[in-house]
Order: sequence, then C-alpha cells, then structure tokens
Amino acid sequence: MGRATDRRGVLRIDLDAAATGRASVRRQDSLAVEEPLEIRVGAAGPGRRRPLAVTMRTPGDDLDLAIGFLLTEGLIRSADDVRTAQLCAGAETPNTYNVVDVVLSPGVPEPAVDPARNFYTTSSCGVCGKASIDAVRTRSVFAVGDDPLTVPAAVLTTLPDRLRAAQRGFDRTGGLHAAGLFTADGDLVVLREDVGRHNAVDKVVGWAVRERRLPLAGHVLLVSGRASFELTQKAWMAGVPLLAAVSAPSTLAVELAEEAGLTLVGFLRGEAMNVYTRPDRITT
Amino acid sequence: MGRATDRRGVLRIDLDAAATGRASVRRQDSLAVEEPLEIRVGAAGPGRRRPLAVTMRTPGDDLDLAIGFLLTEGLIRSADDVRTAQLCAGAETPNTYNVVDVVLSPGVPEPAVDPARNFYTTSSCGVCGKASIDAVRTRSVFAVGDDPLTVPAAVLTTLPDRLRAAQRGFDRTGGLHAAGLFTADGDLVVLREDVGRHNAVDKVVGWAVRERRLPLAGHVLLVSGRASFELTQKAWMAGVPLLAAVSAPSTLAVELAEEAGLTLVGFLRGEAMNVYTRPDRITT
Repeated sequence: MGRATDRRGVLRIDLDAAATGRASVRRQDSLAVEEPLEIRVGAAGPGRRRPLAVTMRTPGDDLDLAIGFLLTEGLIRSADDVRTAQLCAGAETPNTYNVVDVVLSPGVPEPAVDPARNFYTTSSCGVCGKASIDAVRTRSVFAVGDDPLTVPAAVLTTLPDRLRAAQRGFDRTGGLHAAGLFTADGDLVVLREDVGRHNAVDKVVGWAVRERRLPLAGHVLLVSGRASFELTQKAWMAGVPLLAAVSAPSTLAVELAEEAGLTLVGFLRGEAMNVYTRPDRITT
Repeated sequence: MGRATDRRGVLRIDLDAAATGRASVRRQDSLAVEEPLEIRVGAAGPGRRRPLAVTMRTPGDDLDLAIGFLLTEGLIRSADDVRTAQLCAGAETPNTYNVVDVVLSPGVPEPAVDPARNFYTTSSCGVCGKASIDAVRTRSVFAVGDDPLTVPAAVLTTLPDRLRAAQRGFDRTGGLHAAGLFTADGDLVVLREDVGRHNAVDKVVGWAVRERRLPLAGHVLLVSGRASFELTQKAWMAGVPLLAAVSAPSTLAVELAEEAGLTLVGFLRGEAMNVYTRPDRITT
C-alpha cells in the first residue's frame, strides 16, 4: 500500500519565472507508481497455475484487483468460486509482489486455453463487426434494468467533490484515476485509485465480491475519467444500475448501457450532467 | 473517416437553470465513436490469417492503426515487412469494416501462437516482477539516446495549443485523445485522435511506417493525456527522442525513458513543464 506513489527528481521549467532568473528548478515530485501485475489462475488441486493476464497497475489492493478482474471477465461469479488468492512469493529478492495466484474452487472451470478475449479472439473467419464485438463481450447475470434505484440530481452533483476529497493519491501525483462506489444517498462506500481506470473499477468490484455485496443493486459507481465500453461492461457485470463519469462516454458505452437498462451519466460537473440512458432513475 | 463522431439523444440536467424552469432539456450530443477493431495477421501465401488482437478504437486510419500496432509490438520492423493490409470485406451486411487483414512479406515470421504479450504471458513460473515486466517489454532497434535533438522550452510550450487547435473530434465530443508528431521547430507533422491513447499513438506510428519515416529521429511526440509505460515504449519503438504529455507520467514510464535515453516531459501546460529524463535536450 505504501507503493501507490513514489518520488523522483524532476527539472521544473517555468518560463514565466525566467525574469527572476529561476526558469529551471530541480525538485522532487510524487509520481503514480505503475507496475505490472500478473494474474495466474488454476483449478483446485496440485495442478499448475497458468498466467492469465498481465495488467499495468498501481500496487495496492492487488487481490481485489485480481478477483474483480476475474468477475468482470465472467470467469467467476462470486467469492465462492475462489478457493484462495494470494500474492505470490516469487524467486526474486526482494519479492516484488507483482504476481497474484488464484486457485479456483472445485467444480469451477479453468479459463480455456484462449481466455484472453480482450486481446486474443476466436478465429471466426469471414465474419466482421459483430463477431469482434462478441469477442469482447461478457454476459452479466444481473438484471440491472429492473433495479428500482432513484437518485436526486442534487445528490449526483455532490459526488465528484466527495470522490476527489477522498482521493489521496491524486493530490500528490495528478496521475491516478479513481472509481468510487456510493449509496443512493451519496455516501461513499469504497474508493480505489489506479493508473488504469479499468483497474480502479476492478479493485472496487473485487472488494464487493469479497464482501459478498454483489449484485451492487441500488448503488452508484462514479469514475474520474471517461466512460468506455469496458467500464460500462464492468458496471453491468457487478450489477450496478447507475454509472456516472466526470467526462465523456463513447457511443458503444451508451449502446451497452441501453441494452443493459443501466443509467449512464456523463460530464458530471458543477451543477450539471448529461444523462444518456434510463433518465427515469434521476429525479430533479 | 465519417464515423469518428456520432450523435445521440441526451437529457441535459442543469440545476443552476432550475429557477428558469429549464432544469432538464432534451438535446442531441456528439459522442466519440468506439468500435472494436480486429487485427488479423498471416504469413505470405494462401494460408489463413489468424486473429491477433481486438482493440476498442475510434474508426478511421485503421490500416495505420494495425501497422503501428504491429511495429510497436515488435512484430514488424518496417513497411517492407508488410505485403498487404486491407479492411476485410466480411460476411456482414452492411460491412462494418471492423477487421484489418495483414499479410506479412515472405520471410517475416508469423506471430507465435501466443503473441498477445500484453495480456497473455509466457509461463515463467516462480519468477515474479521482472518476468512480468519482461512479458510486456518490447525491444527497440533504435538508439534514441544518441539522438542530438534539442528543442527550446519556448517551442514546447506552444505545442498543446497547436495540438488542440488541430483536434477536430475533441471539440465536438470532449472524449477523444490525441497524439501529435511535431518537428523540433514546433510544426505539426501529423495528428491522430482516438478514444484510446495507445491507439492514437499507434495511428501516428503506422502513418510514419507507411511513409517510411522511421526512425522518427529529431521529432517530438505529444500526447493529450498521461504518459504511461506503454506510450513511452511505443515512442521508443518508433525512434522518437522526446515524448511530451499534457498530464502526469507514471514511475515506470520514467524508468523506461531513462533506460532508453528518451526525454520525457510531463505536465506541459501554460508556460511550464516537468522534465523527468534527459533534460539536456531542452534549452531555456
């Protein structure tokens, strides 16, 4: 946890300060730490764990990241599907703690040899477009469209400041994304930061899996950046009925939210927001 | 090219406008288009092309994106390594143009069965950390450390405005990242936009590969967001000696830039910037 930020020497150049003869100053700056995390998965028993994914992430909450990743990728459905998850004690000295080893519960199928749908697709020759989308689609078991959540717009507009106030790493580095889970009353349930937006969301979802809080019915998930297809999909996989982003959504994020019956809010800034899907959940 | 942005209906809520009775307004908004692109690769000859990667991207310059991806992944070294690259005419009606089919030149090795280093790693059991980093590392053939480029700080500070002025999609959507290639005099050579920062850089690199401009010695690459490990690696693979970002770099980006002898600039805003590595290339 102490490794989320680190200090580095930097040459600060400020041409506005040139008149004072201090155009260049050497100083120490805090940076967001980025390191690879390898997620290994294996079936119960003495078998070997196989590397499933490497993600560039900010260290901290790595077990949650791994578990959240497995859930949003559709490889597990609850905490019961995981027998053990531990930071691997590797051969390196000192241990870099950059590997998480997950053992699935008996009966949970191991990921296929070709599990990396996000990157590596099935060879569906001659079929364009839809096949590609299918390759990156996971299927949620949660009917978020039926979630009766309603949230006052006046509550939503308070969330970015609450997220930002709780973001310790960003203040120091300016380089960490955040994902925050809120109640319908606007109370922050959990916040996670990461150099990768998808990792921040996976850490929140992994926490919720471990706490046995899925589906996240009645909750609001706020992300500090844009709303992509991938983030919308992760929200749906976790059963979140309302995804809000401080910045813009993409077309595919809107289309997926529409299909899911998920409320998608973008440009949540100041006293205003854009509601792209299911505006019936927001009261004014 | 016409599909980079698209319009969607949106409910705009502005609580500040509530006094006028116009708190909610239905309107049309431009969104950044996000669609999957499947990149297929095969050796010369009648053999089958195999799916190598699916990336979520904004349509446009897809051949450049595929070629840039192959180069920055270390799978090709120049335009000579590509025999043909074409948008696949798929079975769907209408054709969605979401597949690029690349045929390698004779003698260029096909990617291994397990080419997806970024996601899917070699099974180096028991070795943590370094092995994971190796799994996401590519090796550049260009000695950017020897590049004699120097750029006045006063030129660098003009680049973000030049990039933004040339960014047509961002103005409409607020949701597109940009990568711009500049000369040492600050002239924009090429700009590409995408929902994914890595895609925007790959599109610039792919253009340079096709134009046979590699290595991009003496050039500056500016990205609209943060500088991650991945973007720094792509810059090095293309032989760029100076990578500048409007926002923060990560620790691993700084470490890789150090190793490469690449100048890494962050927080390039207004009249100021932070120089993390090789400040000797920047004159004040």
